[in-house]
This record gives sequence, structure tokens and C-alpha cells, in this order.
Amino acid sequence: MELVFLGTGAGVPAKSRNVTSIALKLLAERNEIWLFDVGEATQHQILRTNIRPRKITKIFITHLHGDHLYGLPGLVASRSFQGGDTPLTIYGPVGVKDFLETALRVSDTHLSYPLHFVELTRGGKIFDDATFTVNAATLDHRIQSFGYRVTEKPHPGELLVDALRAAQVPSGPLYGQLKAGHDVTLADGRLIHAADYVAAPQPGRIVTILGDTRKTPNAVKLAMDADVLVHESTFGAHEAKLAKRYYHSTSQTAAETARQAHVGLLLLTHISARYLGPAAHQLEVEARSVFPHTKLVHDLETVDIPFKKGVVMSHVSQ
Amino acid sequence: MELVFLGTGAGVPAKSRNVTSIALKLLAERNEIWLFDVGEATQHQILRTNIRPRKITKIFITHLHGDHLYGLPGLVASRSFQGGDTPLTIYGPVGVKDFLETALRVSDTHLSYPLHFVELTRGGKIFDDATFTVNAATLDHRIQSFGYRVTEKPHPGELLVDALRAAQVPSGPLYGQLKAGHDVTLADGRLIHAADYVAAPQPGRIVTILGDTRKTPNAVKLAMDADVLVHESTFGAHEAKLAKRYYHSTSQTAAETARQAHVGLLLLTHISARYLGPAAHQLEVEARSVFPHTKLVHDLETVDIPFKKGVVMSHVSQ
Ligand SMILES: [Zn+2]
Ligand SMILES: [Zn+2]
Repeated sequence: MELVFLGTGAGVPAKSRNVTSIALKLLAERNEIWLFDVGEATQHQILRTNIRPRKITKIFITHLHGDHLYGLPGLVASRSFQGGDTPLTIYGPVGVKDFLETALRVSDTHLSYPLHFVELTRGGKIFDDATFTVNAATLDHRIQSFGYRVTEKPHPGELLVDALRAAQVPSGPLYGQLKAGHDVTLADGRLIHAADYVAAPQPGRIVTILGDTRKTPNAVKLAMDADVLVHESTFGAHEAKLAKRYYHSTSQTAAETARQAHVGLLLLTHISARYLGPAAHQLEVEARSVFPHTKLVHDLETVDIPFKKGVVMSHVSQ
Repeated sequence: MELVFLGTGAGVPAKSRNVTSIALKLLAERNEIWLFDVGEATQHQILRTNIRPRKITKIFITHLHGDHLYGLPGLVASRSFQGGDTPLTIYGPVGVKDFLETALRVSDTHLSYPLHFVELTRGGKIFDDATFTVNAATLDHRIQSFGYRVTEKPHPGELLVDALRAAQVPSGPLYGQLKAGHDVTLADGRLIHAADYVAAPQPGRIVTILGDTRKTPNAVKLAMDADVLVHESTFGAHEAKLAKRYYHSTSQTAAETARQAHVGLLLLTHISARYLGPAAHQLEVEARSVFPHTKLVHDLETVDIPFKKGVVMSHVSQ
């Protein structure tokens, strides 16, 4: 599980930062990549990575401002041109379907794969399967803006094969039953408790990616206990008034949200072109004074999201 | 008058060539820049030039395929964001207005300048003022595709000031009358013929920029006697069948059009990513065997369009 920041700028593209797009690589977990926002030239940024567009199965749009949206038609068309044939689902505010379908219709573009839309009118659980859940909540921006909380389900504990062998439990289909949590009775009459031979499950990871927003309680809720929070930082700590007027966050309010939500790591993005080099570093310094575990990200930067070391879920015997 | 090739690729962006956009710089002539096609990330390419988006006053879209169109919303929005306040007119096939207006509406984008559309259903004269004319004609592509012929009107001849001084014609408002072509009578009774003291007019230049097309008579008509013809060369000379099937040109058919139209210079663009380095050079070689004055262009290349040296319009005395 890795985040790749394809664009970390705000408003308009600059040489140093493209407009917003974030890839969540779930290759080991699902053999999939999910995108969050698709600013113009996201597909160009992807050319500079090892991401293959056909691996992108879900796209989550936080809000419909152009710097988060205008790369969508090109990416979707190129995914088809390059032979993508698996379904693609796009989540986002109402309007994303109109925008994309108009672009494809006017340009006479016919996709080689099924395209699905899930338009959101409010927050809630928007995706759930055996391994991942995604929840959305509305934030506080000039237009409707969503944050997304991606929750990986716990990985089942490993079967303790060495211990089973030591106890002279014969290998075979029994092992599968034990791993699935079922107690089994051996031919010699011994009852083997699954709980004694299955390690504790590994808790899943949580990644929260927010759209543009002012400080808002929903941001804290979405980010609660997340391993990583990706938060916009359009303004510096001393520009709280501007941030409020333009419905954005400062480095400081982003850090306050991270602190209140007890996240593991705060990643600052959506940096205005006004903050170049040392000025951008200052945003990071400001945030760290509130929440030390903060990093300001750059275009094409990759951030690994490891499992929490030494943290396992409490092992409940049946 | 200069052409700047912002994108010279076909279909999908590649590292070496972005999708299509061409800037015609008319800074000395009109203090304006005109764009032909706006593929995705055209505004990103502009960041690598000295072009200021606010100088762009007209955009001509040849056809509505995404690789010629998808950069339009971002460019139009950024022109506003960067303080552009002069009108922008967009010419193109029917649908360009729906595409752009949908993008702006869905993204809640409000421009700081007036936006006009001229949707074309057929060819003809689409623009004409004191210094320039633009004619359009339909080509032969899978969807409606236009070519544009930009004709500069003749520059009035210079007043031959040295000759007037030698003839002891006193300077003053009389000079303006002479330059405007009016004969004048001096205080000493001499009649001065304007035609004797005004140089021949300098013929204007002609630039023809074609959208994607198969070989078609209209291309020759649009390009007739042009100083520069910009022509797609999606395929090599040996792929005539593929070119026909996909409604494109080969290096050879482009050159044949240039030869038939007696153009000054043929510029090949819209190069597939299959032709890298030497392979692209081969397209140029193929074209030159038919029409020697051919050049294959690259991203961010600038081509100056000088006045025809030594060519002046016949000087008709009154
Ligand atoms: Zn934004
Ligand atoms: Zn094309």
C-alpha cells in the first residue's frame, strides 16, 4: 500500500507542481490502483511513473473544481486506447457523470471497458467488499467537497504451522479448517482448538484523503486513528482569514485536524504556486509545531504505508 | 509571425510529444496569439514558453477528438485565473460549445472575460478584418474536421522619406496624405504623385493549418500558394492502407498535397508515438522525396514565417 502524489499543486498547474491527483497503489492487496482526483495532465504525470492506467479500477473525485477534474476525460480515453478492458468506477459529486459523458460524447470516444458512476449526494459507506471499505463525508468548501476514508479490513492471522507440526497434527485439509477458525477433532481423538494455532489478525490500514476544505469536524471524523491523513494546505498559518474566505485550510488547521484525529502521519498537499522551495518548507514547519509527524509532499513522491509494527488485534479465543 | 508547436503527437500524450496544439504568434502584427487545437496539457506546454495566455484571443479547433480538445477547459480557466480580461473567441465544429460550457458549469468556473463561440457547420470565410482573413474548409476524417487558411492582408508600402527629402518636399501632414495614396500640391505649385514616393505594398503571408485528414482536394485548395502548410503525418509512406482506414495521412500524401498546392514550406506534425527518433526522421525523408522543402517538427519548436524576400506586389501607378 503506497501513495503516489501525481500532482500536489493548487488551482493552476505550475512547473514545479501539477494540479491534484493522488494514486493509492493496492497492488499487493488487490492488484489495483485507485486514484483520488484527476487534475489536467494526470495521465502525463503517470507517464513518469510505473503506474499502468489499466490497473486503475476506481477513481474518487473529491470535488468538481477543474484542478481536480479536468484530466478525467483524457485519462479515461487513454486507458481505453492502451487496451484497458476491465471496469472502471468513478465516485464523486453529482455532475461528474455529466462532465465526463459530455466529453466522451462530443469527442466521439468509445471506451473498450464498462464505465460506472457512483454519484454522491451525501456521506456514508460508498464501497465495501472482503478486503476494503470506503467511507465518504462532506467537508466545507465553496462547492460540495468530499473526504474519503479507505479502511483495509484485518488480515486473518497466519496458521502457526511449526506449532502444529510440533504437536504432531498431521498436515492436510485440517489445516485449512483450522485457519478458517474451526476447531477440529483428530483421528486419535484429540480436539485441536483453532485459536491456539492461528496468530492474531493483522489490523488493516486506514488512509484518509480529503478534498479542499476549511477546518471542519467531519475532517476529524474521517481521519480518526488513520495511519495517514492527506490534507490540503493551500495557505500558511498566518493567512487564516484568506483560507476561510476561499474555503481552504492553512498548514496549522490541517495539523490541528491531524492532532485531534490521532493520525499516524499527516501529508500536506495542494500547495499554492506562491510557496516555492523554502516558502513551502515553512508550511511544513508551521504544521509540525502543532503535529510533529507531518510531511509536505512533492510531485511524483511515493509514501509507503506500512502495517503498524508490533500492533496486532487482541487475540480472542473462542 | 511565428508558429510554436506546443504538441506534435497523435492520439495519446507521450513523453517526447504532447497531443496537438499549435500557437500562431501574431505579436508584431496584432499583439495577439491564436491557437489551433488544444490537446490536454497545452497550458502546461505554454508554461515552458514565453506565451502569455491572456494574449490568446482566438482558438480554432480543427475537430473534436480528445487529443485536440481536452486541454480547452483548463486553458480557458487558467486564462481567467491569471487575470485575462479581453474577449476570447473559439471557432470549431458543433459540439465545442457544449463540451466547454459543460466543463465550466460542472466545475463552477466563472470567467473574468467574455467567451464567444463560432460553431462551424461548413467551410467558408469565418473571420475578416483590416489585417487578416481566415477561411475554413472541411477535410476527410472519421468525424468532421476542418482546415484553416490564415491570410495576412498586404502591408501598405512604406513612404520613401529619403526620396521626398531629396526632392525638397517639406515634411509635415503632407507625408501622411502621400502615404495614404493621395497626390498633393505643394505651396510652390509642384504636384507630387503619391505613387512615386510610396514603395510597393508587401504581400501578406499565408499559413494553412489542417486538422486530421485523409488526402482530399480541399486540403490542396486551403493550402494553395501558402507560405507554410502544417499537415498531419500520422503514418509512414508504406502504411497508406492503415492511413486510409483510420482517416489519416501518410508522410507521402501530405507531401503530395504540399506539392500540388505549391506551398513554401511543409511542416509535418501529429506524429504517432510509434515513430521515435530515427523513425520519425524517416517520415521527413519520405516526404522530402516528394516535396523537398519539408520539415518534421518537434514539441516547443518555433518556426518563423518571414515575408517573402524580394517579392513585392506589382506597383500600380495611379
Ligand atoms: Zn483545488
Ligand atoms: Zn488527432
